[in-house]
Amino acid sequence: MDQPVITPIGILHGDIHSREDAPKFYSESDRRGILEIYPQYLEGLDGIMPGQTIVVLFWLHQAQRDVLKVYPRGDKSRGLRGVFATRSPMRPNPIAISELSVEAVDGNRVAVKGLDILDGSPIVDIKKKHS
Amino acid sequence: MDQPVITPIGILHGDIHSREDAPKFYSESDRRGILEIYPQYLEGLDGIMPGQTIVVLFWLHQAQRDVLKVYPRGDKSRGLRGVFATRSPMRPNPIAISELSVEAVDGNRVAVKGLDILDGSPIVDIKKKHS
Repeated sequence: MDQPVITPIGILHGDIHSREDAPKFYSESDRRGILEIYPQYLEGLDGIMPGQTIVVLFWLHQAQRDVLKVYPRGDKSRGLRGVFATRSPMRPNPIAISELSVEAVDGNRVAVKGLDILDGSPIVDIKKKHS
Repeated sequence: MDQPVITPIGILHGDIHSREDAPKFYSESDRRGILEIYPQYLEGLDGIMPGQTIVVLFWLHQAQRDVLKVYPRGDKSRGLRGVFATRSPMRPNPIAISELSVEAVDGNRVAVKGLDILDGSPIVDIKKKHS
């Protein structure tokens, strides 16, 4: 079976340093940070502007990959559920999808709001939000 | 720089065999297919039920990875744009995000509707849709 290899396009600079300090979900967060895009991918940012909402895929480099059942949002009263029926960061391929507001674009640095992702996480992709 | 490796959790069986035959976007599609999840990940499906909308990440194994500017939706009248400001399948890490309706779950086979993804594409992840 092929195992695709991800080439990170950048890295997140933020102020969240542990799971405990992270908001549970981006829609509940007003935490700010900078998407630093590596120079060789700069051209791909053309068209991203302040005020837009972008969809950003992060690699959750600290997440466990060998867990298949979790308590959704840590709530044990609802019982265990398969990770694919949740938004848990723990999953075989720990990729997070965040919708973030663009506050500023300065060369290869994109200032965003709405983060629930750990500082230092590799950026996998950025997409236009589907309208 | 670390290069994370993706371990596909399954493979898509569908009836779209070329880009030309693919709907432009999942929200415009009623094409059906089967997500075949590999047996070792079966437990992760627990809680996925018919009627739900799930978010599925596919690896676009036929997409070009070395393109940074495209004509959005192939429309040359609007000029070139950076891939990160579009939903083009061409991008450094060609991962698609689809929202699909679950029609049936039979063991490790999940029948879905709304596909715009090529038959044989590796499945990277499945998530609950954020409500």
